[in-house]
Amino acid sequence: MNKPIITAFDWVPPFARGQVRDLRVRWALEEVGQPYDVLYLAQGSQRHPPHRARQPFGQVPTYQEGDLTLFESGAIVLHIADRHGKLLPTDPAARSRAIEWMFAALNTVEPPIMDHAIATLFEADAPWSKPRLPSVNARIDGRLGELSDRLGDDTWLEGDTFTAGDLLMVSVLRIVAGDGHLDAYPNLQAYVERGTARPAFERALADQLAGFTGQPPAELRAWLEKMGEAA
Amino acid sequence: MNKPIITAFDWVPPFARGQVRDLRVRWALEEVGQPYDVLYLAQGSQRHPPHRARQPFGQVPTYQEGDLTLFESGAIVLHIADRHGKLLPTDPAARSRAIEWMFAALNTVEPPIMDHAIATLFEADAPWSKPRLPSVNARIDGRLGELSDRLGDDTWLEGDTFTAGDLLMVSVLRIVAGDGHLDAYPNLQAYVERGTARPAFERALADQLAGFTGQPPAELRAWLEKMGEAA
Ligand SMILES: N[C@@H](CCC(=O)N[C@@H](CS)C(=O)NCC(=O)O)C(=O)O
Ligand SMILES: N[C@@H](CCC(=O)N[C@@H](CS)C(=O)NCC(=O)O)C(=O)O
Repeated sequence: MNKPIITAFDWVPPFARGQVRDLRVRWALEEVGQPYDVLYLAQGSQRHPPHRARQPFGQVPTYQEGDLTLFESGAIVLHIADRHGKLLPTDPAARSRAIEWMFAALNTVEPPIMDHAIATLFEADAPWSKPRLPSVNARIDGRLGELSDRLGDDTWLEGDTFTAGDLLMVSVLRIVAGDGHLDAYPNLQAYVERGTARPAFERALADQLAGFTGQPPAELRAWLEKMGEAA
Repeated sequence: MNKPIITAFDWVPPFARGQVRDLRVRWALEEVGQPYDVLYLAQGSQRHPPHRARQPFGQVPTYQEGDLTLFESGAIVLHIADRHGKLLPTDPAARSRAIEWMFAALNTVEPPIMDHAIATLFEADAPWSKPRLPSVNARIDGRLGELSDRLGDDTWLEGDTFTAGDLLMVSVLRIVAGDGHLDAYPNLQAYVERGTARPAFERALADQLAGFTGQPPAELRAWLEKMGEAA
């Protein structure tokens, strides 16, 4: 097929580099061995009409393959897996269980983790953010403890084979892997390390990082200065 | 096939009745015409080992079909759709777009809505909840405005045919449909009304409501009294 085209940002603040969600799509494309092109958006332009036509919520990533334009990283990863017959088991029951972990990553584990990101990054200055953090952290920790119990000594969530469910779960756990949340869960730490040691992940990450060749938009410069080192 | 077995609660506080996530699974089963059995869990027992084996995060719903046990309402709805060849278009591109809306419902629209539920129900007394509400409401309103723009005058998210994506999106929008969030978006209101007027939805809702035949657990009684009317 023709190379699919994904969208990504040409600039994000330093704290977001390596975390923007096009990484999940790049990773899936690398796992299945599908070359792709990237349409880089200037930061801010995601909210303007041309990109809104691709992504109603004004976000990245999107994925274009011929006439088909898709958004939602979870749906794109699932589409890529199906399109290439990889990253999901062919046995119907095993396939449904791998998809279950895709939804668990995005609907159960990610929401409290994004809450944490809002509280510590986007609303760090709001008077409610600090006092609320223990409650957010407790919610994250509950999910991580439960996930750790389920994973046990297994290599991947459904045993021996890496699936699209692991791809998304590792992507979500990585968001908090650097800030101590995983310290109590060595098996989750090792799981994230296994995932991110995959050559496909390493290529995807390097390519995302290499794509940040743009400049911050003027209206963000004051905020960036205030954030100092963090931004 | 043998009737699948789903799990649901035998008791939840009044504010949660008609919102527990087994409703999404019941709705899908009704849409495809598949009879099912319900294993009712006493409130609290979802966190104990027998149910944890089904659902690592100690939640409902789960879905059992022969040897296969699944959790995550999104994954279960997708499994039911595939198993019965309904609720998803057969054309691969149209199918991927319907699945995209499933992820949009659960990873983009639901998170701020659940945040609102935490702030107004589970952490209503926390000192940070009230001051933070305008920010949570703004996040919800952003998503609703964008969704409303995309839906426009269409009947369903992908045009004329109700899909599993609509089933989940209507389920998510229903959470805030009663509290004014949709007032500015008549097309979303009409969309939710269309979804919930479907006979399959009505049966699913009636069956969930009829299943609350249990009692609150002792340790919740003090909280319930404090919540008064709301609970
Ligand atoms: N549920 C969406 C979330 C996408 C998302 O959060 N994208 C962020 C970058 S990681 C974005 O584009 N934010 C820019 C903005 O909101 O202006 C998905 O998984 O695709
Ligand atoms: N992401 C899960 C969420 C399930 C969920 O939130 N279940 C709630 C009821 S709506 C639950 O069982 N809560 C009980 C508890 O946490 O103890 C899904 O979609 O299945």
